[in-house]
Amino acid sequence: MKIYQYPTKDSWKDLVKRPVLEQKEISGRITDIFAEVEKNGDNALREFNKKFDKADTQSISITEEEIENAEKQISNELKQAIQQAKENISTFHASQKQEIQKVETVKGVVCWRENRAVERVGIYIPGGTAPLFSTVLMLAVPANLAGCKEIVLCTPPDKNGNINPAILYAANLCGISEIFKTGGAQAVAAMTLGTESIPAVNKIFGPGNQFVVAAKEYAQRYGVAIDMPAGPSEVLVIADEQAVPGFCAADLLSQAEHGSDSQVVFITTDLKVFEETIEAVNQQIKDLPRNEFAAQALENSSFILVNSLEETLEFSNLYAPEHLILAIADFEKYIPLIENAGSVFLGNYSCESAGDYASGTNHTLPTNGYAKNYSGVSLDSFVKKITFQHLSKEGLQNLGKTIELMAEAEGLFAHKNAVSIRLK
Amino acid sequence: MKIYQYPTKDSWKDLVKRPVLEQKEISGRITDIFAEVEKNGDNALREFNKKFDKADTQSISITEEEIENAEKQISNELKQAIQQAKENISTFHASQKQEIQKVETVKGVVCWRENRAVERVGIYIPGGTAPLFSTVLMLAVPANLAGCKEIVLCTPPDKNGNINPAILYAANLCGISEIFKTGGAQAVAAMTLGTESIPAVNKIFGPGNQFVVAAKEYAQRYGVAIDMPAGPSEVLVIADEQAVPGFCAADLLSQAEHGSDSQVVFITTDLKVFEETIEAVNQQIKDLPRNEFAAQALENSSFILVNSLEETLEFSNLYAPEHLILAIADFEKYIPLIENAGSVFLGNYSCESAGDYASGTNHTLPTNGYAKNYSGVSLDSFVKKITFQHLSKEGLQNLGKTIELMAEAEGLFAHKNAVSIRLK
Repeated sequence: MKIYQYPTKDSWKDLVKRPVLEQKEISGRITDIFAEVEKNGDNALREFNKKFDKADTQSISITEEEIENAEKQISNELKQAIQQAKENISTFHASQKQEIQKVETVKGVVCWRENRAVERVGIYIPGGTAPLFSTVLMLAVPANLAGCKEIVLCTPPDKNGNINPAILYAANLCGISEIFKTGGAQAVAAMTLGTESIPAVNKIFGPGNQFVVAAKEYAQRYGVAIDMPAGPSEVLVIADEQAVPGFCAADLLSQAEHGSDSQVVFITTDLKVFEETIEAVNQQIKDLPRNEFAAQALENSSFILVNSLEETLEFSNLYAPEHLILAIADFEKYIPLIENAGSVFLGNYSCESAGDYASGTNHTLPTNGYAKNYSGVSLDSFVKKITFQHLSKEGLQNLGKTIELMAEAEGLFAHKNAVSIRLK
Repeated sequence: MKIYQYPTKDSWKDLVKRPVLEQKEISGRITDIFAEVEKNGDNALREFNKKFDKADTQSISITEEEIENAEKQISNELKQAIQQAKENISTFHASQKQEIQKVETVKGVVCWRENRAVERVGIYIPGGTAPLFSTVLMLAVPANLAGCKEIVLCTPPDKNGNINPAILYAANLCGISEIFKTGGAQAVAAMTLGTESIPAVNKIFGPGNQFVVAAKEYAQRYGVAIDMPAGPSEVLVIADEQAVPGFCAADLLSQAEHGSDSQVVFITTDLKVFEETIEAVNQQIKDLPRNEFAAQALENSSFILVNSLEETLEFSNLYAPEHLILAIADFEKYIPLIENAGSVFLGNYSCESAGDYASGTNHTLPTNGYAKNYSGVSLDSFVKKITFQHLSKEGLQNLGKTIELMAEAEGLFAHKNAVSIRLK
């Protein structure tokens, strides 16, 4: 832990810095993997499964039988939980739909926008230390609401060539029929380039390790869009004197357990809450199965004591956290001061894990300071907003002179002529 | 011109291909320019002005005097035109504001989104063959509506070290006070890295040549966001038997005059309209001041005759044009068939130049097939949508079990504990 009491504002720019990840070595390997997938398609994916996941996968496509088996392996309790989460995510994302609103800017000139789904989307779900079936819901639910015609899901197999049953259950619940056993950069390459089994998609979503992140960036060279640039997950907790140290500690640890590179920041105006939260973190970590990750993450974490809540918000805006928890009594007052954050949790009972799983908000959020210029995933992420306009003859008469003058001033006479020829 | 009568669908995938631009040589030069700007700041920009723009610029900042002088050089007619365009753009983009809509997904669990402006945005306006003051309006108006705190504009000086007066007038009209004389990749580098005069921004907007495009892609490595990936401008015109060949030709040429790499596609179901439009293009081009560009662009353009309007739309969706003109009588019927396009112009009087300048829609649109997975610039481009949630104690009680079950199934016990500790 790094502990700072009343640091000067000059020092803040260092405190908000994330560790820089070295990516040079990776990029050559990404190029090779894309080339291999382009050349050998499914066969390359099978070979990568052997090499990276130690898995022998005859077929990379998931069969109906595998889905049926997965369903049997999951408790009814968990199924109901997944269903409730799906319902809440669906409710919240459905509320993001916008009605078409036609605007007559000048008499006879009507403009509006209409949404059209991105036709084919790819969802990447990491394997590794946590089977993130919750991410399946977070991406497939809005994709379905948007009306995406084809939703493809890739996730790495385990050593026995199987996919985690909860991932299969969640995918099937969301109506995804194209599920493939392939992970890492090669899965991103497959969704970018297409193979015999896997269709090329227009946009790729989902988290992953630094190979996946680098592959998603590389995929953009092929005209594929991605959800957003990514970095390690992070939380910033702001607390006042009414915050509950045990709750704050639990929230900080729930971020820290994600991985050793997770970012955790605690900032408060109250010395007692400051000291007790640090103590609670040190206590609670002992009982965690993933405490090795958490301990490593905490090494880079900051615990900061400042003078005023205004300062906590100022610091938070500079840091631009993925998750921001306002464990303060008067949170309503401070909402307008929030400028940069991915998702905000208000009050003592709004723990981050509520939004991670089930409250309805999306958990695919901007990290690494990208909350300054990116939004989290929403229904908007799965659509294009196309502008439409209709000018009647009268409309063009009303606007024609303006267009002609501007086109001429820009030296674009064919632009002018497109108006003149119609008004003749 | 490339003329195709009833091409087979198999051949379509070749017809929708854009020319591939070679970018390899450029990337090394971009790296050098960024390094130079990082090292020498304003001085590097002055040197680049000498080298690339043949301009001696003592100060790269625009003075109030220069703005006052610019205003004097512009006719009242043009001023009024710019003002009307600004008003329409403002009206349409203001209509994109969304009210905050709170959703209670479960009793006691309230979720919503709020917009926050991207704090600092940079606008790049190219110099070159056309002074695109219209683009100033298209970017500065929504930036202002969104509430961006700092709007920076960079544009290259002419040989005398001056900026086109219409660009200055439009910028001043939009309240932009930070205007700098620097162009090309170095302007993008300056807005990314910051110099003594130019502040580093969070997001960079605006068109440019392939150096600017490459620099904007490169800028993303520094955490800067960009409006969208870019390619040459393009239009696809769909016409039926009621279309006016002279109008269609004028629209095609207004796209072709942008530059030799502009993309122009005409597709119709009517042989007479087909032949007469080709003839009209060949006639109208003769009188254009920029007919050299247009003629080169037309060499790569396609004129296609097909059997049905459904096929024209199918082709258009495959091509995913930046601008789509439906010069057909029954356009209402075909709107639902449009899947991929940047901006759509309906009927015989909705010429592309209306949207380019003054109807109110944005003219910064996805090119090069990116209409499949990107939207044009809108108010959304200048904000982040932050999700908020508040759970009451009752809310967490209602949702807690679901969160605990899911967290446990993902093996994330600290996530589970953040709920359990609150419900104890």
